[in-house]
Amino acid sequence: MVETSHPGNIGAAARAMKTMCLYELGLVEPKEFPDPVAFARASGAADILENAQKFDTLTAVIADCQMVVGITARPRKLSAPVVTPKQLMQQMLNHSGQNQVAWVFGRERNGLSNEEIDLCTVVCTIPSNSEYGSLNIAAAVQILCYEWYVVQLDRQHEASSASPALPTALASVGEREGFYEHLWKALEKIEFLDKDNPIPSMRKIRRLFDRAQMSGTEISMLRGILKNILKQ
Amino acid sequence: MVETSHPGNIGAAARAMKTMCLYELGLVEPKEFPDPVAFARASGAADILENAQKFDTLTAVIADCQMVVGITARPRKLSAPVVTPKQLMQQMLNHSGQNQVAWVFGRERNGLSNEEIDLCTVVCTIPSNSEYGSLNIAAAVQILCYEWYVVQLDRQHEASSASPALPTALASVGEREGFYEHLWKALEKIEFLDKDNPIPSMRKIRRLFDRAQMSGTEISMLRGILKNILKQ
Repeated sequence: MVETSHPGNIGAAARAMKTMCLYELGLVEPKEFPDPVAFARASGAADILENAQKFDTLTAVIADCQMVVGITARPRKLSAPVVTPKQLMQQMLNHSGQNQVAWVFGRERNGLSNEEIDLCTVVCTIPSNSEYGSLNIAAAVQILCYEWYVVQLDRQHEASSASPALPTALASVGEREGFYEHLWKALEKIEFLDKDNPIPSMRKIRRLFDRAQMSGTEISMLRGILKNILKQ
Repeated sequence: MVETSHPGNIGAAARAMKTMCLYELGLVEPKEFPDPVAFARASGAADILENAQKFDTLTAVIADCQMVVGITARPRKLSAPVVTPKQLMQQMLNHSGQNQVAWVFGRERNGLSNEEIDLCTVVCTIPSNSEYGSLNIAAAVQILCYEWYVVQLDRQHEASSASPALPTALASVGEREGFYEHLWKALEKIEFLDKDNPIPSMRKIRRLFDRAQMSGTEISMLRGILKNILKQ
């Protein structure tokens, strides 16, 4: 974060990072830091503030990085290629493991200077309202950290995609048909079904219940209801 | 936003919304609002705060909505189906145009109550650090608003390839609640509900029916069944 004015934003950024498992925060000439306001806004992410490193220049922070991403609200002329957060994460996935990446967030009021943008290998702009694109800086940090977190989750899923993982045990066809027969009897008893033409109503009802993808337990519960109806 | 404690969070949420072209903010019993701190944090999004509506209850806010999304950090037992933001946006895209959607954000400290979650048709959890998943509420608002904005951008891109659009008109919350009240009476009559503790069974049944995403017509049909049960 370059020359951040409000310590609250540094704290909020730390919290945003930690929620998405990112931990290394570098601060270039922050106006007020350390500061109790930053710690208050960081909530449970004080450790990130305690470990945050201060630097005199952006160059010093990014010296060891292979990929330097400038986050900017406005498109610039003659800047590095501009990508969306999603595109950025794809690029980062392709590089990760081998490359150190820095995300560079500019000042609250006027972002990054042209000289700072020149130091970046990629520029990333968060899509936003063309009439009011002024994201709070910690909110921008949150979006980027979130995108990185979910793209990694997706990759983990793909890696283990041999497992089909069906969480809820759906009822078997036999259980479902047993339920519908039972239901038919109950609806007959309460004279809901048209005696001469019961099928259309039953079909509508089946469609509704089939959509709910019932479990075996749920079918037992529903059949408990039907039993009570038939007992009346 | 339900019972938000810090006016700063309301302001930050308004700013987050406006950056992503969302404008309608409803506040259920905010602790301090209107408040200068909210306006300071809203920055250029004061118009959203000025137009924000205050409500006494969550039920009042969502009465006209067909889709009510509870945003929650913790997975709950027996809650509505839990989706990620990306999955939520896909569901919303499928329904949009015909259905009013509300996103419900809970208290800073302890989120939404079980009763409030019961009013939701979908529960959405933002993936996050399992050791520290405590997103600031305005940061969570920012992520959801951002996801909705970019999914719409993507759709506009695809728009040329003529999408068919699924025209399901879901039942409104009012229709659904009317059905559940009616159902309660019928289940009482046939002595299915435990007189001393009816809530757990009702909650299980609601989950099942909510999952089916019923239309208004289907609810009328089901209420026909209930009427006949009560006539016996």
